[in-house]
Amino acid sequence: MIVLGIDPGLANLGLGLVDGNVRKAKHLHHVCITTESAWVMPRRLAYIHSEVTRLIEAYQPEAVAIEDQILRRQADVAFKVGQAFGVIQLACAQAGVPVHYYGPMQVKKSLVGSGRADKEQVIYMVKASLGVRELFNNHAADALALALTHLAHQPLQAAAARLARA
Amino acid sequence: MIVLGIDPGLANLGLGLVDGNVRKAKHLHHVCITTESAWVMPRRLAYIHSEVTRLIEAYQPEAVAIEDQILRRQADVAFKVGQAFGVIQLACAQAGVPVHYYGPMQVKKSLVGSGRADKEQVIYMVKASLGVRELFNNHAADALALALTHLAHQPLQAAAARLARA
Repeated sequence: MIVLGIDPGLANLGLGLVDGNVRKAKHLHHVCITTESAWVMPRRLAYIHSEVTRLIEAYQPEAVAIEDQILRRQADVAFKVGQAFGVIQLACAQAGVPVHYYGPMQVKKSLVGSGRADKEQVIYMVKASLGVRELFNNHAADALALALTHLAHQPLQAAAARLARA
Repeated sequence: MIVLGIDPGLANLGLGLVDGNVRKAKHLHHVCITTESAWVMPRRLAYIHSEVTRLIEAYQPEAVAIEDQILRRQADVAFKVGQAFGVIQLACAQAGVPVHYYGPMQVKKSLVGSGRADKEQVIYMVKASLGVRELFNNHAADALALALTHLAHQPLQAAAARLARA
């Protein structure tokens, strides 16, 4: 399955697309979208919304995996990131793609095996899993990590669905 | 000029439309849109986005006035309201309507004359200015107050624009 991972942000938004399953995943694309703080907020949000919509149309992912634990930060940061988070989820809803939410601990646990892994270990595992040599942008790396996290949760979710039907 | 005032929120979103100028304003419409907490977030945001878009298309406001000071609250509240705030501003950007931001103090000052006025005084002035007898929903009342605040700032903004051109 094709999964779009998103590291949400207003100034920097990481997007990463992978295809496959937990055992074999292929790198499709990654990018970091940036908006200027000099732009008025509606323009920044419209740009983010249109770029996310464009990527969804181009790659037709079956699912979106997004990081949702931004709450430890200050209220004004949460308010800004929340606005970007809003238009991202809207783009998904309009395209009919389900959104799945993962915290940083879940990402670390899925990729490295421990919720206390550091960023370098996560990036190393993203590169190793996808056979990508260079990954210079941390936001894009986080986005790919989220997409892989969703693939890692697929067997569990499929098993849960089978149990629910049984 | 027609102004759409918005009291932003995720569960309750106030919308109010007025037409006229600071000396004579007419009530056009007001409504409080609600979304259920049981709905997934993308659905709540898509509903808010489509309702705001629908009202803009129906009334063709020249400007949107929205309350933007929600930062004193906790980070998780700011994050939630931020998501609604994001799709509202997106709807405005997509319709090409400029968004103006006002704080609660500015609203109180514009309508009652003091930044320390209480809610009842603001609602009284909204009713009196618009000749509306009953106004049961506080979110809709706040939205109308925001629209009137924008009208009150128009002469100033027009004068500033004249000065800038001179």
